[in-house]
Amino acid sequence: MKQVNVAIVGYGVVGNGVGKILDTQKELLKQKSGVEINLKKVYTRNWNKTFPHPIEEERRAKNLDEILNDENIDIVVELTGGIDFPYNLIIQALDKGKHIVTANKALLAEKGKDVFTKAEEKNLRIGFEAAVAGGIPIIKALREGLVANEIKKIYGILNGTTNYILTSMYKEGKSFSQALKEAQEKGYAEADPTLDINGTDAAHKISILSSLSFGGFVEFSQVYVEGIEKIDTLDIDLGRELGYTLKLLAIAKSHNDEVEIRVHPTFLPSDNPLSKVDGVFNAVMVEGDNVGETMFYGRGAGSFPTASAVVSDIVSIAKSIQLNIGKEIEITSMNWKHKDLNLTKVKDFYTRYYIRFTVPDITGILAKIASVFAKYNISIAAVIQKEKVLKLQKMINEKVVPLVILTHTASENNIQQAIKEIVENHYSIEDPTIIRVEDEE
Amino acid sequence: MKQVNVAIVGYGVVGNGVGKILDTQKELLKQKSGVEINLKKVYTRNWNKTFPHPIEEERRAKNLDEILNDENIDIVVELTGGIDFPYNLIIQALDKGKHIVTANKALLAEKGKDVFTKAEEKNLRIGFEAAVAGGIPIIKALREGLVANEIKKIYGILNGTTNYILTSMYKEGKSFSQALKEAQEKGYAEADPTLDINGTDAAHKISILSSLSFGGFVEFSQVYVEGIEKIDTLDIDLGRELGYTLKLLAIAKSHNDEVEIRVHPTFLPSDNPLSKVDGVFNAVMVEGDNVGETMFYGRGAGSFPTASAVVSDIVSIAKSIQLNIGKEIEITSMNWKHKDLNLTKVKDFYTRYYIRFTVPDITGILAKIASVFAKYNISIAAVIQKEKVLKLQKMINEKVVPLVILTHTASENNIQQAIKEIVENHYSIEDPTIIRVEDEE
Repeated sequence: MKQVNVAIVGYGVVGNGVGKILDTQKELLKQKSGVEINLKKVYTRNWNKTFPHPIEEERRAKNLDEILNDENIDIVVELTGGIDFPYNLIIQALDKGKHIVTANKALLAEKGKDVFTKAEEKNLRIGFEAAVAGGIPIIKALREGLVANEIKKIYGILNGTTNYILTSMYKEGKSFSQALKEAQEKGYAEADPTLDINGTDAAHKISILSSLSFGGFVEFSQVYVEGIEKIDTLDIDLGRELGYTLKLLAIAKSHNDEVEIRVHPTFLPSDNPLSKVDGVFNAVMVEGDNVGETMFYGRGAGSFPTASAVVSDIVSIAKSIQLNIGKEIEITSMNWKHKDLNLTKVKDFYTRYYIRFTVPDITGILAKIASVFAKYNISIAAVIQKEKVLKLQKMINEKVVPLVILTHTASENNIQQAIKEIVENHYSIEDPTIIRVEDEE
Repeated sequence: MKQVNVAIVGYGVVGNGVGKILDTQKELLKQKSGVEINLKKVYTRNWNKTFPHPIEEERRAKNLDEILNDENIDIVVELTGGIDFPYNLIIQALDKGKHIVTANKALLAEKGKDVFTKAEEKNLRIGFEAAVAGGIPIIKALREGLVANEIKKIYGILNGTTNYILTSMYKEGKSFSQALKEAQEKGYAEADPTLDINGTDAAHKISILSSLSFGGFVEFSQVYVEGIEKIDTLDIDLGRELGYTLKLLAIAKSHNDEVEIRVHPTFLPSDNPLSKVDGVFNAVMVEGDNVGETMFYGRGAGSFPTASAVVSDIVSIAKSIQLNIGKEIEITSMNWKHKDLNLTKVKDFYTRYYIRFTVPDITGILAKIASVFAKYNISIAAVIQKEKVLKLQKMINEKVVPLVILTHTASENNIQQAIKEIVENHYSIEDPTIIRVEDEE
């Protein structure tokens, strides 16, 4: 039986999980898959700290060349951060004939085209199950389990940090900054949580899922992204009254030749299964033409859940090495349409909207705002006007009230024009809060 | 490019779905997977009816030999009912060197050992994604995506008919017979719903999931099964008061060398994600040592959802045929432990219990019942005693009340002994209703 040798580059939280599984569950993996997998080398910049799963001296690589030039290493597991360093590493490893397993969503979303093209040239495999939704085997489901479907829509909660924050705002009435602080204390948010909070991380992940599902690469810089930094508990409460739960949703829909991809705070009907995904959990809803709606739920981060996904890729690649097969074993290859995807422009988004204006408490304002909506062909589904007097910081003495309008499906372009007109006419004394609503009619 | 030829045996609801996908989505499948798949022959006993996806004369097989003896047919898709007929068909097809795809859970649960052993001898593959939870790719998840896990527990809602009935009892207060009638009218329950209602169908499915997850075959006749025929809305309502939702759950847990498998009506905490799976949907929760809890949700039946699973197996096998590989491509083979599984005996079940007694409305009965529980070391977690007078059919004039006891974890053996003593002493004037509770402490 051929042994398959693996090297890990980047030995942090996930790396230690992978190391531990490979070392301690070797027998289980062999029993199940018939392949013997050895962790031969590990590289990290700094060995001078304690590791949850320590690596003995002989297996510590002094430099990357020790891995790249070792002909017996079959698979390089890339678990570093950033983009440039892992990009160079992966390209070099592919050039040396090594298969790749990576958990790096930023790299794949931003430079995936180069990396997958290179792998195709070399007939080598790139495993990236761990790059999206941690331990949930969603990549495999899209590539294989749902192969008999034209994917119509994928949407989901792909970032645990923001879901933790929104859950504690919804359930415990915390403010955004209180909830973020608590998430940091519990280790669910990083010291610098920017890429989670501003939606970039979820956008990386939905780009990868889109490329795979819709068969071509996404130009990441064109993806529409909005974070949760400005979310006010007031909107969470008003949305709840309307029957909605607020989530940071990543959404990709295919229509005709275009793919509409967007990441933003979204109101979902409270009885949608995703509305009930709380805390750090992730969940992805996939709609296929044959299967209908399916949902995949689990831990989207953490040492062992993510390592579970990394090791499933290692086993799959090890199996193909044992059988002397390369990339051709993959059931759905990335870029199977062999073209880039056209993204829908923001002005052409077409969805429902929750809009909260801050209006002076005087007669006739609702009529004026409603007439602007009518002018732009926007149909109103529900209105909430509260008697409660809000004390806004900038005009503490003026009597103002929140006015919420829930629209039927409308175009983003019309919404933006209507809002511009409403603000210019001072019907709303503040820029309104706009939250898109995912609730098909 | 080698073409792969497929024959379907059994052309009902699922067969027509498979036929349609293979005929109309051929190009999509080829684009994604690089394999060209032809539906060459279809066999059904009776061609004298109209089919949603009609098959022209040339592709209609007159008899099974026309398929079995055709050397160009690579894969036989078995979509008939029953056990003996499909068993003989599959064994013959394997003998002729053909791979198998089947949606037949009864066959695999009851004769899987023979069938998989035969396939192993012949180095042929058996795809059975469609046998469990319809379009949800749970078999693939267990075999491949979660390969790096020791599976600790699998539990889920594996039968859409019973879930539809329980949902309408819970949400609309319908009686069991009203809900069943409605399910039949809507086509969610068959004219003879016995195998769904009495739990057999869910038991077949959990047996298959157990064999795969725990690495050995289950002796199906030993699996504990209880149906929903006797469920009273009174218990659904009382459970709700205690924070529980009633589901027909299929449960498999591994401990030491044993696997505990049981199918029965079960109270789940109302905030468990499975409690929110309503109507005909299925969902499976899998707990792995590394990944933690993951859930897979979708449509468990229906023409196209099930066909989606069948076709994913066809594509996977077609790919291996194209690469000249057999069974060795499979990442986790059935029976990877190469032994049969030992099932935990009913008396050794260890769980929480909801027990509803019907007691005369007199002082001291609760104390007497509680002392019997104490005698058998059963610890009580909650009690509900209702003032409401129940009119039981058999003793319409006697004043009796329901008394519900929720226990902490206890052994089935102790529970049965305690109940026997309580009934013998006439503390309960009817046999109590016992519902197991899945809520770990």
